[in-house]
Amino acid sequence: MELTEAQQQELADAKAARAETRRPTVPALEAMLFDPLPVLDHGFVRVIDYMGDDSAVVQAARVSYGRGTRAVSEDRNLIRYLMRHWHSTPFEMCEIKFHVKLPIFVARQWIRHRTANVNEYSARYSVMDREFYIPAPEQLAAQSASNRQGRGDVLEGEDAARVLGLLRADANQTYDHYEEMLNEDESGAPRDPARQGLARELARMNLTLNTYTQWYWKTDLHNLLHFLRLRADAHAQYEIRVYADAMLQVLEAWVPAVAEAFRDYRLGAATLSSQMLVVTRRLLAGEAVEQPGSGLSKREWRELMAVLGREG
Amino acid sequence: MELTEAQQQELADAKAARAETRRPTVPALEAMLFDPLPVLDHGFVRVIDYMGDDSAVVQAARVSYGRGTRAVSEDRNLIRYLMRHWHSTPFEMCEIKFHVKLPIFVARQWIRHRTANVNEYSARYSVMDREFYIPAPEQLAAQSASNRQGRGDVLEGEDAARVLGLLRADANQTYDHYEEMLNEDESGAPRDPARQGLARELARMNLTLNTYTQWYWKTDLHNLLHFLRLRADAHAQYEIRVYADAMLQVLEAWVPAVAEAFRDYRLGAATLSSQMLVVTRRLLAGEAVEQPGSGLSKREWRELMAVLGREG
Amino acid sequence: MELTEAQQQELADAKAARAETRRPTVPALEAMLFDPLPVLDHGFVRVIDYMGDDSAVVQAARVSYGRGTRAVSEDRNLIRYLMRHWHSTPFEMCEIKFHVKLPIFVARQWIRHRTANVNEYSARYSVMDREFYIPAPEQLAAQSASNRQGRGDVLEGEDAARVLGLLRADANQTYDHYEEMLNEDESGAPRDPARQGLARELARMNLTLNTYTQWYWKTDLHNLLHFLRLRADAHAQYEIRVYADAMLQVLEAWVPAVAEAFRDYRLGAATLSSQMLVVTRRLLAGEAVEQPGSGLSKREWRELMAVLGREG
Amino acid sequence: MELTEAQQQELADAKAARAETRRPTVPALEAMLFDPLPVLDHGFVRVIDYMGDDSAVVQAARVSYGRGTRAVSEDRNLIRYLMRHWHSTPFEMCEIKFHVKLPIFVARQWIRHRTANVNEYSARYSVMDREFYIPAPEQLAAQSASNRQGRGDVLEGEDAARVLGLLRADANQTYDHYEEMLNEDESGAPRDPARQGLARELARMNLTLNTYTQWYWKTDLHNLLHFLRLRADAHAQYEIRVYADAMLQVLEAWVPAVAEAFRDYRLGAATLSSQMLVVTRRLLAGEAVEQPGSGLSKREWRELMAVLGREG
Repeated sequence: MELTEAQQQELADAKAARAETRRPTVPALEAMLFDPLPVLDHGFVRVIDYMGDDSAVVQAARVSYGRGTRAVSEDRNLIRYLMRHWHSTPFEMCEIKFHVKLPIFVARQWIRHRTANVNEYSARYSVMDREFYIPAPEQLAAQSASNRQGRGDVLEGEDAARVLGLLRADANQTYDHYEEMLNEDESGAPRDPARQGLARELARMNLTLNTYTQWYWKTDLHNLLHFLRLRADAHAQYEIRVYADAMLQVLEAWVPAVAEAFRDYRLGAATLSSQMLVVTRRLLAGEAVEQPGSGLSKREWRELMAVLGREG
Repeated sequence: MELTEAQQQELADAKAARAETRRPTVPALEAMLFDPLPVLDHGFVRVIDYMGDDSAVVQAARVSYGRGTRAVSEDRNLIRYLMRHWHSTPFEMCEIKFHVKLPIFVARQWIRHRTANVNEYSARYSVMDREFYIPAPEQLAAQSASNRQGRGDVLEGEDAARVLGLLRADANQTYDHYEEMLNEDESGAPRDPARQGLARELARMNLTLNTYTQWYWKTDLHNLLHFLRLRADAHAQYEIRVYADAMLQVLEAWVPAVAEAFRDYRLGAATLSSQMLVVTRRLLAGEAVEQPGSGLSKREWRELMAVLGREG
Repeated sequence: MELTEAQQQELADAKAARAETRRPTVPALEAMLFDPLPVLDHGFVRVIDYMGDDSAVVQAARVSYGRGTRAVSEDRNLIRYLMRHWHSTPFEMCEIKFHVKLPIFVARQWIRHRTANVNEYSARYSVMDREFYIPAPEQLAAQSASNRQGRGDVLEGEDAARVLGLLRADANQTYDHYEEMLNEDESGAPRDPARQGLARELARMNLTLNTYTQWYWKTDLHNLLHFLRLRADAHAQYEIRVYADAMLQVLEAWVPAVAEAFRDYRLGAATLSSQMLVVTRRLLAGEAVEQPGSGLSKREWRELMAVLGREG
Repeated sequence: MELTEAQQQELADAKAARAETRRPTVPALEAMLFDPLPVLDHGFVRVIDYMGDDSAVVQAARVSYGRGTRAVSEDRNLIRYLMRHWHSTPFEMCEIKFHVKLPIFVARQWIRHRTANVNEYSARYSVMDREFYIPAPEQLAAQSASNRQGRGDVLEGEDAARVLGLLRADANQTYDHYEEMLNEDESGAPRDPARQGLARELARMNLTLNTYTQWYWKTDLHNLLHFLRLRADAHAQYEIRVYADAMLQVLEAWVPAVAEAFRDYRLGAATLSSQMLVVTRRLLAGEAVEQPGSGLSKREWRELMAVLGREG
């Protein structure tokens, strides 16, 4: 994650600015503002702006005239109540804006969350940087044998080296050719005046999917939590999960009471199907229940046993 | 628009608070923050919070690292370009939150704009206030003869007095009965201990549609502009247009460059159909074009002549 | 739910029409098409159109070229898998359109679900019918003592009679005055030529919130399930729950495999918080756990005991 | 656009099926159903399902009980009225579902339209096909000199040949290495049993952005028109415009009255800013107006002159 001098200066200027405001302000988040949290080999997440705090959730739920004088513990309890009963609109009253740098194949997963505002760096308009995601060796995993959508064992020795070599070489070669097709120097003038360059909107198609892109991504707190629930999860692909993990840190700084309720009622919770509830009740009644005849598939049985903290 | 003492205190406390922030801050909007702009007889719009400013639009469009050092005029030109070419995502990067008090029949029109976040005062949970919208005499208009969805002449004399009398009496009577059915005093205890009160979620059905409700309404700048284009318009019902007009004032204070572009390319602009363009070209070529044979209906002809500043 | 002769004729014509199609077609739903399912005293839900079936969910999830030749049981298993793992996009591939007649206060709850398409009968443009919701006696409940947002005991004897009398009289009186203010006969001509009528968009404000309105409401299957999860639930107000219950019947006819999975993994399921999971594991281990010290509030404790089928 | 035998059979089966329905049915669209409309070198658009027709727009706008007995011309007039006055909800009452095969860089532009339902072929779960978009020679254009986001002259001779050679070679090489990293044969078994294959979700990152993907894309008619307005436009990149053009053909077959109104009031229309209106009025009054001093930038002036059919 190397920034140019101009970018570092922009960042430093943004961080140095101070203004007085009457708006709800969160010192712990102010301290993180603008600073990139590094993710993967060249990516980052940084907070650009935010609206609201824990109290703003409460204030909207009560449709009140001001921020109130109730105890912090009352606010916390209301937040827990709202989370537990799947209220969504009070959490929509907070908003956050991120600047994210991420590989294109991750951006393609991420964009499936439609309830956010996005401005992406345009490869029609601008030239992409030479930056690719190359996995760390411990992330080079084989296809999972049991889960068609997951990873298995980590590749080792020559297998790993070969893969890393191919990824690096192909990304660099396609980028070299991208530059060659563009035939532009940094000022936009032709490198080789004897040749015509290809339009940027066409040349970009030669880049590989691990090329880094970046965007501004803005969402409300309710939709952020939904994103985190799906992506800060063991089933999510590692390369998007690390972004979600960084955003969880931001969440803790920004809205600590919401973050706590989110851990208790979402991340750490489990949904039991009607069949799972039947099994659980039978177990509690002391019955010896086995998977065959339980009404659960083998996979559901394993999941339930894990949730209940029992050997499968 | 009378506030209770407790509400006035909440408001005063919110206004008195000050904090330091690194976020983009707009002094002209800070000065308006929390203060109700009166609308209709008991309604208001007030800004509770905001995110971003003119520069935030530009920064997101450029996906830049900071707020940049370009001239204000360059930012203004980019904003005008984005508005003119119907770009939407850069304007989505600003967000604003209002507290609005409004009659229920206006709330029902307003809520049709789905791309906003809303928390409404709950009449299942709380008791509604005795406040109704009664139109000012100059708003008591007859049905339009030419437009099935509009108003014609203002009612006068006894006709007007009769209508005002009915509206006032019915709103008060239905509210009296609402209170009687609830059978609650301010503490929630029964007024008449010999009777059982009706559940709030049921009793509310006896209220008339001019009863005031209130909500928190949060939206991004792009969707706010869309709302204003439809509602700060001569075809909108007067009772919602006055809310849009108040929000236009907020817009001018918040994002003056966007507001200017919005007036030039939206509010003050006109869309000419392909048939209208043909007529305009013929007129410019010096032809004497008449409505019959022009390809335009009578109403479209009148509209075009108005847009072109000609006698119909 | 009385229809005019013209409406009955329209309905009969729609039902009589037949056409040949290559689209997925569901005979059980075709049989229900257009027929109003009565709800409350004058309301209804009727299906106007639909797109897709159980197989369309599967086909989209597989991005396949046709409807495939797999066994029905394979499709069912995939649907259950998708439901269990909170996949949403395959369910968005089915769509349904309803015509609903409902009291305005119910419409105001309903419209909070924003991810649907709505066309409502316009009281700016047309005159409303004289139809109000008057609760059946067994629905006339007092405010709940324990739940600020619910109902308690049913009103009896004179208390009930008094409430019904007030609701009926006020709805009729405000409607009488609505008509008087409009001063229109059925052709739109003035009833009393000596008076000017008030514009429809204004006169409507005198109606009470139990007046019936109607709309076309179209949504995809994923969002329909979300609606049903929240509204076909004991916490939902009775007057909207009965609409959800009618739509559940439609669901069973339309997409039986999805409906089954929905009952198992949503309606009949329960989400246990991290604290609830700890308690459940302790109980399974044979510990004697009591509410105090369990990490659960009294209400959460009661809910957990109910879910686990134990005495509180 | 080569299909496997299995895919061709699926397609043929879907086309052969017939059922009876009471739903609105459009014979002209039924005739196109399931058939791929070829786009670019390997892409296509095909209609999978649809809901509604021209009359469904009208029926929803009127919230009527049936399809009515009004003349077709009345329906056409209402549709034109709704289009002209920017009504959106009646057009949302029709829905269409496409299966689209398209290069990934086009998919990335397309997905920015958030108000649609999408199921994309998963490269986490499945292996991608060896199919890339290679532009036709007449599409190999240089960067535009005047428009940073567009194309200029077509490349010729050796310049073109070189670009095509690079695109072809790189796409094939990165795909070869993708296969090598996966190390799977068609049954999923290892090609080279001595090596471990890389997980699909990782190997895909080596593919170039012109690789074809496919998805099911479902949207309502209002949002389809919005998509077409932006993408069937001279400013859109050629590679997405050809998809929009194919969908315009579908539109004509499906809802001919809506398509006609769309051409008149959207595609063939022009929006004049307030400054442009002033200039137009001055020209109509016979004034000799020049760009300097007109209040228009040079580019706006050129656009206005083009719209008015005058030499700049």
